[in-house]
Amino acid sequence: MTSFLSEDFLLSNDVARRLYHEHAAPQPIFDYHCHLPPKDLAENRQFADLFEIWLEGDHYKWRAMRANGIPEKYITGHAAPYEKFLAWARTVPYTLRNPVYHWSHLELQRYFGINDLLDENSAPKIWERANAALASLTVHEILKKFHVQVICTTDDPVDDLRHHQAIAKSSLPTRVFPAFRPDKALNVGQPEFVSWTAGLAKAANVDIRNLSTFLDAIRKRHDDFHATGCRLSDHGLDHCFATPCSDQIAAAIFVKGQQGKPVTNEERTQFASFMMLFFARLDAERGWTKQLHLGARRNVNSAAQRRIGADAGYDTVGDFPQIASLSAYLDILSRENTLPRMILYNVNPSDTFSFATLIGCFQGGDQPGKIQYGSGWWFLDQKEGITAQINALSNVGLLSRFVGMVTDSRSFMSYPRHEYFRRVLCDIVGQDVSRGELPNDDRLLGRLIQDICYRNAKEYFRLPISV
Amino acid sequence: MTSFLSEDFLLSNDVARRLYHEHAAPQPIFDYHCHLPPKDLAENRQFADLFEIWLEGDHYKWRAMRANGIPEKYITGHAAPYEKFLAWARTVPYTLRNPVYHWSHLELQRYFGINDLLDENSAPKIWERANAALASLTVHEILKKFHVQVICTTDDPVDDLRHHQAIAKSSLPTRVFPAFRPDKALNVGQPEFVSWTAGLAKAANVDIRNLSTFLDAIRKRHDDFHATGCRLSDHGLDHCFATPCSDQIAAAIFVKGQQGKPVTNEERTQFASFMMLFFARLDAERGWTKQLHLGARRNVNSAAQRRIGADAGYDTVGDFPQIASLSAYLDILSRENTLPRMILYNVNPSDTFSFATLIGCFQGGDQPGKIQYGSGWWFLDQKEGITAQINALSNVGLLSRFVGMVTDSRSFMSYPRHEYFRRVLCDIVGQDVSRGELPNDDRLLGRLIQDICYRNAKEYFRLPISV
Amino acid sequence: MTSFLSEDFLLSNDVARRLYHEHAAPQPIFDYHCHLPPKDLAENRQFADLFEIWLEGDHYKWRAMRANGIPEKYITGHAAPYEKFLAWARTVPYTLRNPVYHWSHLELQRYFGINDLLDENSAPKIWERANAALASLTVHEILKKFHVQVICTTDDPVDDLRHHQAIAKSSLPTRVFPAFRPDKALNVGQPEFVSWTAGLAKAANVDIRNLSTFLDAIRKRHDDFHATGCRLSDHGLDHCFATPCSDQIAAAIFVKGQQGKPVTNEERTQFASFMMLFFARLDAERGWTKQLHLGARRNVNSAAQRRIGADAGYDTVGDFPQIASLSAYLDILSRENTLPRMILYNVNPSDTFSFATLIGCFQGGDQPGKIQYGSGWWFLDQKEGITAQINALSNVGLLSRFVGMVTDSRSFMSYPRHEYFRRVLCDIVGQDVSRGELPNDDRLLGRLIQDICYRNAKEYFRLPISV
Repeated sequence: MTSFLSEDFLLSNDVARRLYHEHAAPQPIFDYHCHLPPKDLAENRQFADLFEIWLEGDHYKWRAMRANGIPEKYITGHAAPYEKFLAWARTVPYTLRNPVYHWSHLELQRYFGINDLLDENSAPKIWERANAALASLTVHEILKKFHVQVICTTDDPVDDLRHHQAIAKSSLPTRVFPAFRPDKALNVGQPEFVSWTAGLAKAANVDIRNLSTFLDAIRKRHDDFHATGCRLSDHGLDHCFATPCSDQIAAAIFVKGQQGKPVTNEERTQFASFMMLFFARLDAERGWTKQLHLGARRNVNSAAQRRIGADAGYDTVGDFPQIASLSAYLDILSRENTLPRMILYNVNPSDTFSFATLIGCFQGGDQPGKIQYGSGWWFLDQKEGITAQINALSNVGLLSRFVGMVTDSRSFMSYPRHEYFRRVLCDIVGQDVSRGELPNDDRLLGRLIQDICYRNAKEYFRLPISV
Repeated sequence: MTSFLSEDFLLSNDVARRLYHEHAAPQPIFDYHCHLPPKDLAENRQFADLFEIWLEGDHYKWRAMRANGIPEKYITGHAAPYEKFLAWARTVPYTLRNPVYHWSHLELQRYFGINDLLDENSAPKIWERANAALASLTVHEILKKFHVQVICTTDDPVDDLRHHQAIAKSSLPTRVFPAFRPDKALNVGQPEFVSWTAGLAKAANVDIRNLSTFLDAIRKRHDDFHATGCRLSDHGLDHCFATPCSDQIAAAIFVKGQQGKPVTNEERTQFASFMMLFFARLDAERGWTKQLHLGARRNVNSAAQRRIGADAGYDTVGDFPQIASLSAYLDILSRENTLPRMILYNVNPSDTFSFATLIGCFQGGDQPGKIQYGSGWWFLDQKEGITAQINALSNVGLLSRFVGMVTDSRSFMSYPRHEYFRRVLCDIVGQDVSRGELPNDDRLLGRLIQDICYRNAKEYFRLPISV
Repeated sequence: MTSFLSEDFLLSNDVARRLYHEHAAPQPIFDYHCHLPPKDLAENRQFADLFEIWLEGDHYKWRAMRANGIPEKYITGHAAPYEKFLAWARTVPYTLRNPVYHWSHLELQRYFGINDLLDENSAPKIWERANAALASLTVHEILKKFHVQVICTTDDPVDDLRHHQAIAKSSLPTRVFPAFRPDKALNVGQPEFVSWTAGLAKAANVDIRNLSTFLDAIRKRHDDFHATGCRLSDHGLDHCFATPCSDQIAAAIFVKGQQGKPVTNEERTQFASFMMLFFARLDAERGWTKQLHLGARRNVNSAAQRRIGADAGYDTVGDFPQIASLSAYLDILSRENTLPRMILYNVNPSDTFSFATLIGCFQGGDQPGKIQYGSGWWFLDQKEGITAQINALSNVGLLSRFVGMVTDSRSFMSYPRHEYFRRVLCDIVGQDVSRGELPNDDRLLGRLIQDICYRNAKEYFRLPISV
């Protein structure tokens, strides 16, 4: 019987404990995908209170509060920060078995040394203690505290990167890089596409008159990102696109979109397919790694979206067919020899095994683990999802070559998710050993753990760092 | 090593045992969804023998017997009851690891105090002992024995509810209510639709001449059901429907159907979409809870259906896309503010996680757990399915707000399924505690167990009872 | 703590160990589905070295090596056998948790008595020892060593079966039969279809002028296979086909295909549907068992296929809808009373439960387990996949009637996969007993294990043997 969130949390035997404490815990954090605001990093943001750092932007907590019957006023509405915190505190005891129950208490422990369970009664003291600690816990202090060596944020090509430039000039020892996320470049025919293109033109200083100049502008921003140290791109898509589309057709669709004429779904798919190939070629040329985050169905509650906006906890897991278009996309790139290193993430666990298997068809060259099956993502970012990802990759690929976990978070309070992942990983391996399914060989297993927690990522991404 | 079906069946540690025996077992049964015949309840049916109560209508057992090579004569055919019982007894040893092996022996224990394993040799004695016990074990005695506080049956809008009225007037302490299941109202264009509509006209005493009067008649029955205490509706669908369909189009399709003209698949989908919105609005107005049972593919063996009829064990698990239409349906209702409390059940485990996640997009207001992810259903009504449902809901929602298990059964022998569910639930929580993943706090965990086993359902459904 | 690959590998308690050692291990191997070359069996092939028997044709190992960044030269290219073996040895330590890590070491132990872990350092000695052992380990010796009683290979209808005839005349005690795999008969409209039809005409000695003579030729080969002892057919398909197609339409499509005219996708589906019914009727007439291997997406990397060929490790797991066409296919056959015994295999674990459930709708007659849910196949041929298959079948069918495992292998080194399966099976049952979920009754459980490991297959397939 292990006590809740003890030192050996999630570690069920001696091998697991040894692997975690000796091999996993000492590794720095290499957080190659997150949604932290570069501005906060540049300005070394300080947080007024626990609400600001913990609740202000966390849609996991918002969803839990809504499911608990908390009125929206106390979630994203006009209630005072402390009232919102109390509403959250009242909800926490109802989140038993949800990962936020673990995460929240782990965060209170690791950031503030608070070991109490959060509920309505403990809330006032916890608010006080955490707020007091936050007085000296700036963003930069947090990164130091958690040994964060690398951060890659998520940035629109339209972004001017000035915060990244400021960070690079600062004394922050953590290396911070942008990642290139051009989702909006696919949205031809949608009203925002025209204004986004205008922003792109400005950011790239290119006069966008047609598809060709549109692509020039994107390439210019890709170059600018590269110059700022960016080595990863990222796409959030329902599913991949691989419909044939010639330059001529793409150019015609682009013009229609810019002129505000209606674009059909078929044309949208063609244009998206065209652009996805273009982006892959850019990444391949520059030696970047491309990430595909596939399978979410976003903003399914349109009334809530109108009231509150996007990314407010109204996204869900789609059940799109994935493999036909995804394998066709990889195949085209492979044929033309422009397949970059790539990470495929799924959010529907029904796709776990087919994603993990697919990567095995496009490995090759001298790059170990060239195509990666990405870590448990979003709704799958919990013990069961992490375990399923590790098991699927183990069964049909090489776990040893896995580049490991990301926070994928908008919050500076999420670094314990690396600890969480590492504990789950070490326990999986430890349990295998206890059943005689792995050799009890510390050299072999220690290397495996260290590689996954840190070294594989460091070598794989080829970021412009010298550590 | 626990012995088979012992007192601590399925309970693997002390916490699990304490939670079950102290917190789960004492709760009454609140069976908000089943298929028991109201007539049997009204007439306090007595069963002639073990065949009648146990085998006569149980398609789980029929499927097992067919898979065991038993000729249909001994399943649904003309063999004598005792011969059929013997054929079942011969099959039981081949059902090891199937839930019917557990259920059957649990039922023999709990109803008749029989602890023997059923097989060909033990069959004669078991037949005798059970039949003797059945002499005094009427339907009402069974409900008393299992502390069944509430039953909601499943009723066609055409049903005249006289059995329910009789039950309400009887001295039965169990409260019995109908549930409104208008599946046949969607089947425009099918031959039975015309006769069903005629039955509806009669039951509602409404002259159905067109769509408008058809809807009047349905609303009338909805009112009548409400007056009888009904507070739940239910739909069994391949998948949800959310195709746009105006009143005019629906009216035209209805007329075509009534005139026996061919209705296209597209029109059927439009009409079903129209009706599903209509039903949700009725439920929202009246404060009912709507249930959607999604994903079964019914009557796939047409030869068997012709020979034996529907609901004879020839249904299966479909692999329909679910999320696009289901989320669109919820979205429309949410936009027009007519989203009732709702429970979504899936029968394909590949949909488990996407269903559990989707509910989180439509929570809100002051109702904790307004949209529920329903308990393991039909083919998923076993330890693995129950566990998957609990884990998915835990990971992306609030297990604490779950309204718990139903028997979903046609048989009065199925009450041990609540015990089964409760044991599985308590063991999951107990194992979490032993790994340090939950606080070992009896107050916190005891409340969780009690809420799921009874209190949540009691509060959620707002049935007209005062307990 | 069990040591790696010890005698009790995968067996976690006393019941599991007793079941395995007393009931499973003594059973002969009844390998009713594999891809071993009949020529090697006929000629009692001897292997020059460990490369030939172990690496030459094993796409599981090839995929692992590619994922490890090994250049193709050392995989399927021109490097020397020993160099390729060294490249594999370097990869093995990176395959921790992949089934090839278990299989490889189990194979070294069972074939050569080598207990060392394979890596770059141990490679030279292992190469020497294994090669020395191979001097006396011919194909026939291997079959004797592993008590292989029956082998069914996989054969094209065009095959002349002379190797099978030679084997039948030899003194080999293992009974070897062909299995009928007419995948190419569906490919109307593809260039190879015409040449395949020519080969068929020759093999059957039938002048193929139209559909009718095409079917005659196939029936002739079916008869010839039957005469050689064949009692199984097999189909590898994306998904099943059940589109209506009259004789006339099929005949017209066939002619178009033979004349090199374009055949549409719709026509290809119609023709495949027509042929699949034809094949089922042949099997039903002759009392054969039909196997459907469904859900792989083959040759997704077209560049690699051009360079290296088919079956080189570039296949993956599709996410096709399966149940509509599969259940329609079974329904048609059931209606016309031509449903043969059949085994359904899925390769996408998302289909596991829907496949396992579907078989229950088509059981019947006097044949226990007439429709089988097949063992974990291809990418699912590992502990997790085997467990999922056993659990799904247990939950919705009769595990007791399961005909058990196959190697499905192209390699004579794969017989330990039966041991692997048996250990997993015994451990599942042993763990159930320890939790009180099964009676601890050696007679009941011993029979279950023996039936699944051997007896069920022996009785089910009705091969022309007298053992």
